[in-house]
Amino acid sequence: MKRTKIIDLFRPELLGKEVCVMGWVRTRRGNKHVQFVALNDGSTVKNVQIVFDMAQFTDEQLKPITTGAAIKVDGTLVESMGKGQSVEIQAGALEIFGTADPETYPLQKKGHTLEFLREKAHLRPRTNTFGAILRVRSALAFAIHKFFQERGFFYLNTPLITASDCEGAGAMFQVTTLDLNNLPKNEDGKVDYSADFFGKSTALTVSGQLEGELGATALGAIYTFGPTFRAENSNTPRHLSEFWMIEPEVAFFDITDNMDLAEDFIKYCIRYALDNCRDDIDFLAEHYDNELVDRLKFVLDNEFVRLSYTDGVRILEESKHKFEFPVYWGADLQSEHERYLVEEHFKKPVILTDYPKEIKAFYMKLNDDNKTVRAMDVLFPKIGEIIGGSEREENYDKLSARIEELDIPMKDMWWYLDTRRFGTVPHAGFGLGFERLVLFVTGMTNIRDVIPFPRTPNNAEF
Amino acid sequence: MKRTKIIDLFRPELLGKEVCVMGWVRTRRGNKHVQFVALNDGSTVKNVQIVFDMAQFTDEQLKPITTGAAIKVDGTLVESMGKGQSVEIQAGALEIFGTADPETYPLQKKGHTLEFLREKAHLRPRTNTFGAILRVRSALAFAIHKFFQERGFFYLNTPLITASDCEGAGAMFQVTTLDLNNLPKNEDGKVDYSADFFGKSTALTVSGQLEGELGATALGAIYTFGPTFRAENSNTPRHLSEFWMIEPEVAFFDITDNMDLAEDFIKYCIRYALDNCRDDIDFLAEHYDNELVDRLKFVLDNEFVRLSYTDGVRILEESKHKFEFPVYWGADLQSEHERYLVEEHFKKPVILTDYPKEIKAFYMKLNDDNKTVRAMDVLFPKIGEIIGGSEREENYDKLSARIEELDIPMKDMWWYLDTRRFGTVPHAGFGLGFERLVLFVTGMTNIRDVIPFPRTPNNAEF
Repeated sequence: MKRTKIIDLFRPELLGKEVCVMGWVRTRRGNKHVQFVALNDGSTVKNVQIVFDMAQFTDEQLKPITTGAAIKVDGTLVESMGKGQSVEIQAGALEIFGTADPETYPLQKKGHTLEFLREKAHLRPRTNTFGAILRVRSALAFAIHKFFQERGFFYLNTPLITASDCEGAGAMFQVTTLDLNNLPKNEDGKVDYSADFFGKSTALTVSGQLEGELGATALGAIYTFGPTFRAENSNTPRHLSEFWMIEPEVAFFDITDNMDLAEDFIKYCIRYALDNCRDDIDFLAEHYDNELVDRLKFVLDNEFVRLSYTDGVRILEESKHKFEFPVYWGADLQSEHERYLVEEHFKKPVILTDYPKEIKAFYMKLNDDNKTVRAMDVLFPKIGEIIGGSEREENYDKLSARIEELDIPMKDMWWYLDTRRFGTVPHAGFGLGFERLVLFVTGMTNIRDVIPFPRTPNNAEF
Repeated sequence: MKRTKIIDLFRPELLGKEVCVMGWVRTRRGNKHVQFVALNDGSTVKNVQIVFDMAQFTDEQLKPITTGAAIKVDGTLVESMGKGQSVEIQAGALEIFGTADPETYPLQKKGHTLEFLREKAHLRPRTNTFGAILRVRSALAFAIHKFFQERGFFYLNTPLITASDCEGAGAMFQVTTLDLNNLPKNEDGKVDYSADFFGKSTALTVSGQLEGELGATALGAIYTFGPTFRAENSNTPRHLSEFWMIEPEVAFFDITDNMDLAEDFIKYCIRYALDNCRDDIDFLAEHYDNELVDRLKFVLDNEFVRLSYTDGVRILEESKHKFEFPVYWGADLQSEHERYLVEEHFKKPVILTDYPKEIKAFYMKLNDDNKTVRAMDVLFPKIGEIIGGSEREENYDKLSARIEELDIPMKDMWWYLDTRRFGTVPHAGFGLGFERLVLFVTGMTNIRDVIPFPRTPNNAEF
């Protein structure tokens, strides 16, 4: 018989029909007359209850049905009298695919801490919590592609291995095929990178933006969505050494277009998750964060407030609120400041613009005041900054001057500067750390819980 | 006035209306009465013709309009009398965003070789050819996500940085934050990796499959789509050091389900490209490969022939065809053999199954003959193998025995073996190198031309 996924069992036309399900056992309970098995196949957070009439099955047959075992059941789909489910399956035939020894299988039915499950990242997708998170993550990834493709953006795969280290967004991982126990050396005793795979020293990218600008100034509108790396030794619930980033970049866009795009984009993603993953989000809300759905709707239902960094700092200074970090014009805002503006002052998501040039990247467009740049950060409840972006400096002379001022090695930048040398255009873009979005939509608090196999200092398991 | 993308100009309701377009100049020609500018904005391979009535404009105004310059034009959209276009714009106002000095701008209007353009990978997306290729690539990427998401597969992001090197699919790039000019050493004089970022030696992944199996045996059906790395020193038109791979993996699937999925999948992608990128494909067909559309339709219109490797080898042996490489049972088939079966013998795409275990990976399910494994390779015209996959060995004892036989370090494999230890299920999957698919659909012949910034030995520019 053809298998039916559990998510597809809840259709009225299947009631009374013979079905075949396959999945992993979550629990078994019952008595000598009847046994109940909760089965999950990963297609949904919902289990289906299988009812074994023990007049038809022997104890011996059901003995391998322990938590974690994989089975196949043919049976009749019927209305359920029990609470917590609408339908159940009256088992007709049983096949055991694989057992799970209760002595050694780590995921017994009792709840596990998230910390414990991080050590079992190879098995945690089999839990309700991580099943839900990974399904939401997958839906959000698709929403991102769908949003941009529907608007005529082209997906651009920027390189992971790079020989330029001038973006300055963070510490980098070196990539090499040299034998570290037998390194080729120059005459001066230094490592001879001309013998390395790419003929020079290379590293993993910290951002695809610069290459994204090459794409945007040719195809008009592009987005990247790929892995990005930071070699900072940060052991925090907000940092990963390997994470996924989305970076749209659009020719002929100014900062207002860019803000409109960012707001539409993030609302679209959240709405898509609510429309397509409601069971998973409700499960996570119930178990981890009962304000989750309200918070998601808060973002959907409010127009984002737009104001300058300067005005934002003034509000913070005048608030008399006691912050851990001091706030003053020129300070890099901390998450506590950002959250105060969003959660306490405006009670709406906020977009701050026109930051001091000193705390922003070299490629951002300088305002006429010569002090601020056309940056825009989108600030959210609970997490603070979720998106950072800007209009880009399209003027060759101003950009070169800024590069010199910051001592960025010009020889690595010739190709980037060519976009301003030849047919330069106004353009803008932004970056979103994908895991920050998944954190926000799932209500989880540790970023290691929203990526399947987290990489952090001293951890590259699985 | 609001900008209209060039791709949106060809709508009847816009005729006679005022429009605003922005883009890059491809060519300018004309006389002292009228000047014609071909403008492209990357949204389509089509240019729009801008007509400048020189009674309204001065030579001085139009002087900066050279190939590569970026301009904004307000004007009236009218039917075109010229050939090659249905509409054109009668220019009303002109703004120059950025000039492109004809003395130094590398992309003058004369045709460039693909080799030359590879050296200018930062600018080549501005050419018709690379615009077309990158738009097709983007559409194919979206088709892949759409196909799997519509069928209930979850997108799983497997890690890029890995500490296990047991897949054996290829040479690996090492990832490190150690200072190569000042390496920490053990007592025995070897590099001390406990001081490295992850506390051990790490490398870039050669495949996400093993982690994909972890996902599939929890969520039921997953697919990966991400960058993959091979450090082989292969300078060929078919190899990249950094490329993108798609790897679906499905619980409860056997080899037949897997073949059905692969055939549906690849036909879906090709159909999507034909339906959504016809202008680009026609452009590439006209300029590079006039059999392209026929070849794409050949795949769509034919059921793939399915036969065993053993039968395939027999056909090749009996063909009396003179091959460069000898063919015999046990040989790893070369592209010439694969293409003979597809193009000469069957005149249909072919799926070969049940290969000798010696030439396939350790995780493939052993057949009862103890000699062959349940592998399946999809073979295409022009390129040979496009997909490789298999049913996986789900039996713990058989898989362990194979791992020992091949001397794969067991200590690195405990987490993978746990999928067989606990609730093991039949499952199958396959891998597709994304660039191979883009090559096939664009008709290009060098893989460096279907990825924006190719990484190959001695080349990590941009």
